Amino acid sequence: MQIGGAMSLLVMKFGGTSVATPDRIRRAAKRVGREVANGHDVIVIVSAMAGKTNELVGWVNDTGPFFDAREYDAVVSSGENVTAGLMALTLQEMEIPARSWQGWQVPVQTNSSHGAARITGIPTETMAARFADGMKVAVVAGFQGVSPEGRITTLGRGGSDTTAVAFAAAFGAVRCDIYTDVDGVYTTDPRIVRRARKLDRIAFEEMLELASLGAKVLQTRSVELAMRYKVKLRVLSSFDEYDENAGTLVCGEEEIMESNVVAGVAYARDEAKMTLLGVEDRPGIAAAIFGPLAEAGVNVDMIVQNISEQGHTDMTFSCPVDQVGRAQKAIEDAQAAGGFAYSELLADTDTAKVSVVGIGMRSHAGVAAQMFRALRDEGINIKVITTSEIKISVLIDRKYMELAVQALHDTFDLDKPGAERSVRA
Amino acid sequence: MQIGGAMSLLVMKFGGTSVATPDRIRRAAKRVGREVANGHDVIVIVSAMAGKTNELVGWVNDTGPFFDAREYDAVVSSGENVTAGLMALTLQEMEIPARSWQGWQVPVQTNSSHGAARITGIPTETMAARFADGMKVAVVAGFQGVSPEGRITTLGRGGSDTTAVAFAAAFGAVRCDIYTDVDGVYTTDPRIVRRARKLDRIAFEEMLELASLGAKVLQTRSVELAMRYKVKLRVLSSFDEYDENAGTLVCGEEEIMESNVVAGVAYARDEAKMTLLGVEDRPGIAAAIFGPLAEAGVNVDMIVQNISEQGHTDMTFSCPVDQVGRAQKAIEDAQAAGGFAYSELLADTDTAKVSVVGIGMRSHAGVAAQMFRALRDEGINIKVITTSEIKISVLIDRKYMELAVQALHDTFDLDKPGAERSVRA
Repeated sequence: MQIGGAMSLLVMKFGGTSVATPDRIRRAAKRVGREVANGHDVIVIVSAMAGKTNELVGWVNDTGPFFDAREYDAVVSSGENVTAGLMALTLQEMEIPARSWQGWQVPVQTNSSHGAARITGIPTETMAARFADGMKVAVVAGFQGVSPEGRITTLGRGGSDTTAVAFAAAFGAVRCDIYTDVDGVYTTDPRIVRRARKLDRIAFEEMLELASLGAKVLQTRSVELAMRYKVKLRVLSSFDEYDENAGTLVCGEEEIMESNVVAGVAYARDEAKMTLLGVEDRPGIAAAIFGPLAEAGVNVDMIVQNISEQGHTDMTFSCPVDQVGRAQKAIEDAQAAGGFAYSELLADTDTAKVSVVGIGMRSHAGVAAQMFRALRDEGINIKVITTSEIKISVLIDRKYMELAVQALHDTFDLDKPGAERSVRA
Repeated sequence: MQIGGAMSLLVMKFGGTSVATPDRIRRAAKRVGREVANGHDVIVIVSAMAGKTNELVGWVNDTGPFFDAREYDAVVSSGENVTAGLMALTLQEMEIPARSWQGWQVPVQTNSSHGAARITGIPTETMAARFADGMKVAVVAGFQGVSPEGRITTLGRGGSDTTAVAFAAAFGAVRCDIYTDVDGVYTTDPRIVRRARKLDRIAFEEMLELASLGAKVLQTRSVELAMRYKVKLRVLSSFDEYDENAGTLVCGEEEIMESNVVAGVAYARDEAKMTLLGVEDRPGIAAAIFGPLAEAGVNVDMIVQNISEQGHTDMTFSCPVDQVGRAQKAIEDAQAAGGFAYSELLADTDTAKVSVVGIGMRSHAGVAAQMFRALRDEGINIKVITTSEIKISVLIDRKYMELAVQALHDTFDLDKPGAERSVRA
């Protein structure tokens, strides 16, 4: 990844709903125009018009059950090319010097993992020269790149976020604004907690924990990339009136003046709790269990191993409810193949996961205790606990999930601006 | 243009109606599969799914009245990319080794005339190496190329025909099959003459005269290119059952055993006859008249200059009826600017053009006489006559046009197979 470029370069990314029609493209172009008027050079990353990628994927699926991922990529990448050209034309109509770039024209270099390619480099010289010549906006088709073999690649669903962050990193952009259909990152899901509050700032690490827990605002990889290259990332709505403090800034924790203790409450509604009883306790047993599960495509989330008694232990893990059958088969097959022995496999499919996330936990004791107390006060039994540096997660009965989210949002005063800075002892 | 490649390579081109749905793509793929089974390597050229290019053009027009032709090309070329990928996937599903190529990947080199670019070269090495490695079908997105500046270009409407012929020339293909929604080239329009007959073969020169006269089966440029590089071009329907002699072969006249006298009867319904009376007869007068007409975008077709009397002459030309106003203004402006003098400008907007075309005319006298006799027998007055080596055209009253076409089709026995070989004296 090369770093260089203009002092005042801004990256702006517009998702599919923000460019779904010619009218919305015009609206997005006006936001770009305002930033140009503010003195910025702008790289605009566009997604396909909403619905177009699904149409293309449908046609690919129509060809048969198995397909060449290289051809899949060649087909589904075309939606972004259309939007890029239309955005450039719309900007030109507003007398803003603009041109479109398809992935291969930059080129956005990727590896050859078609359908889920990773960006390996973005040469900046040619585009930088065009900016130096007076171009004000480069419109780049998101989600796509080109492999070392010269084939078109795509970055996976939501990949345009990653395109945007990669350009911001390569060009040393002052900020990367992600325009989407939500107005920022919230302390929790506003559909569950009416008083959920939009966060002005959130640390990269917190965003990663929230994203993987279900706050699907940004593609996780784009946040990782932003963290690594220290790209200031702002999420904001393309449908609201603009103001300076719109959206949520995802940034390094050093840019968040007050050390948040808890930033938000996340949940995953359909988690199953799987328990293997009477597992022989020997070196390599975890690998013997979770290797076959990974090969079977089971997304194992929490893993808890209880203490050992008389050479045997119990192993608990969670996975999405709809993968329980697959998980059971993988474990039974592994046992049959002599991989390991256990006495019983229990599946509890009526659980949900609730987590509190915050970088402030690192330096504050008592967060876990306060969390458990709040759940106890509501009469909610905790089935499994796991913790990381900045996250505490519990599995509970699914019927209590919304109650738990509400109770945790309350106990950490997340509805009050700035309240997340302190924790009640 | 490089010449080389496999002995048994075939080019097959499918137009928009032939790939309009996944089902039709499958049907087209089966035709490709049959040629592969026959031992051919195949280059398939595809258009966009019917209607898709119009949708894209509509969006471009939505951005505003003026647009950057480079961005127009970037947008409208995307339809062919989709079809190319889907065709490759469909062939793979039939277990035929295939892959798609977008214009820039070949690359199809063109000049920078966006929207109407001309192909300047097609490197064959990479694709030939893939054929040598076992690939059986290369699916190429038609209609598009890449400029020396690395921008995407398009070849103009119908440009996929030209793409197909250019590949056939570059690879020395044994034949270039153009699959479309008509089953070949007819002796005249079957809507006018019920007994119009499909021609098995037609010479390039005849096809050019027929195409420019309104038989819109093949893009004119593709026929010119085929003639220059001696590409055997076959036009056939993708909707009919296949047989060996399907369609019409467009080829060099040396491949047509019998010298056709008349191959077909063409017409242009809405031609206007314009006459300038009393034009001063001096060197340069034709340029003084037709220069301004060309600059005004008037498509002048026939031009006839009568004999001069006392230093003045009459000049007659034809043009499409809807360009009469533009032609009048151009001539009046040129006169006002002192370009030339004339006494009167007459416009007859009730005329049509009827032509007989055939390479056999070169060696057969009497064709014109027979044509004029047939028209006389129907009581049709001839207003203007022009002739070329292989075509005789007349302007007549529009109300007699269908009668004239029928009479000429009859007099040259065009409904009878092989009858076009002789001419009645």
